[in-house]
Amino acid sequence: MTFVPLTTQPQEIEEKSFEIIAEELGEHPFTAEQFPVVQRVIHASADFELGRSLLFTPDAIQAGIQAIRSGCPVVADVQMVEVGVSKPRLEKFGGKVHCFISDPDVMEEAKKLNTTRAIVATRKAARLYDGAIWAIGNAPTALLELIRLVETGEAKPGLIIGVPVGFVSAAESKELLSKSKGVPFITNIGRKGGSPVAVSIVNALSLLAARE
Amino acid sequence: MTFVPLTTQPQEIEEKSFEIIAEELGEHPFTAEQFPVVQRVIHASADFELGRSLLFTPDAIQAGIQAIRSGCPVVADVQMVEVGVSKPRLEKFGGKVHCFISDPDVMEEAKKLNTTRAIVATRKAARLYDGAIWAIGNAPTALLELIRLVETGEAKPGLIIGVPVGFVSAAESKELLSKSKGVPFITNIGRKGGSPVAVSIVNALSLLAARE
Repeated sequence: MTFVPLTTQPQEIEEKSFEIIAEELGEHPFTAEQFPVVQRVIHASADFELGRSLLFTPDAIQAGIQAIRSGCPVVADVQMVEVGVSKPRLEKFGGKVHCFISDPDVMEEAKKLNTTRAIVATRKAARLYDGAIWAIGNAPTALLELIRLVETGEAKPGLIIGVPVGFVSAAESKELLSKSKGVPFITNIGRKGGSPVAVSIVNALSLLAARE
Repeated sequence: MTFVPLTTQPQEIEEKSFEIIAEELGEHPFTAEQFPVVQRVIHASADFELGRSLLFTPDAIQAGIQAIRSGCPVVADVQMVEVGVSKPRLEKFGGKVHCFISDPDVMEEAKKLNTTRAIVATRKAARLYDGAIWAIGNAPTALLELIRLVETGEAKPGLIIGVPVGFVSAAESKELLSKSKGVPFITNIGRKGGSPVAVSIVNALSLLAARE
């Protein structure tokens, strides 16, 4: 018994996928600028419901493109996001991806404060970088802490990509983000999300930054 | 505006999530042995439909536990799976996680053969390891190649975790796996899947291996 794949050409696989997605998605509420991001999220998740749940501030896409073109760093909440983000397109503009969750000082402080490593890592990144793209795919506590630090003026993100997944605080953290003022964000409604979603949004933005 | 998370204690967050999942899942077709794996997949995806789509051979859980206890390697198709898998529990038994997709020799050969890096990486891993747990979360071409190598006798997996995601060949590759004979596997029906699904299955198995 064998199955012959339609194609083993990476570029063709992606193009074929994008055709299927555009066809099956049908009518949608997204702008032409937002659509490539939605498409790439559906591509990464095979989940149209998740794609349709995305929310953008009107300035989000341009803020992301500008941050990437200015060589601003990408802050990933977990290593799965860190390794998934495509590096060459960011590096072309001088940008790098950072993830602090496994840093020894972060682990030590989280233990001392009896809190999550995600919270402590968020504080560390906020101290180090202004204008960064925050890609949060896993930890609701990271997103909640980032929202708090934006309100106190301790964090100045260029764009927040807040798509943590899960049953405890994930949907709530994203609802809170969706009501934030004064900061560009991309998020989604509900419990779904995850590292591949955060990765695909960053990668869609860096493609837009490189192409335009 | 603030939102106070229910808890910031990692252990409590996980326990609370697992309670919600068991409650909302209700009746299901899985055995007591399979259930912790299903639960962890739902935990990672917040997707009950995905959890319910899982398929196990009757020997899959025990094959996974035995492979881990014997220190067999875990072969990851992509780096997101490689970094997501929890290492300490595997290392306790002498096991390691390997991913060859970005090896220079793999990249070179894929270019030469005009095929995917996933296929070439699968061949390399099959040459190196017998009895490994294969964790395929991303690349249908890796899974299709592995199934072919099992049929020709060139690959001897201890367990195949085949949960690639996507629109081109993913569902087909998993359907083919579901009809395989003579090899323990965990897979799912349909397009959904992904790195966090593969990761959560490996992590659920290593928890079982460490606990029992």
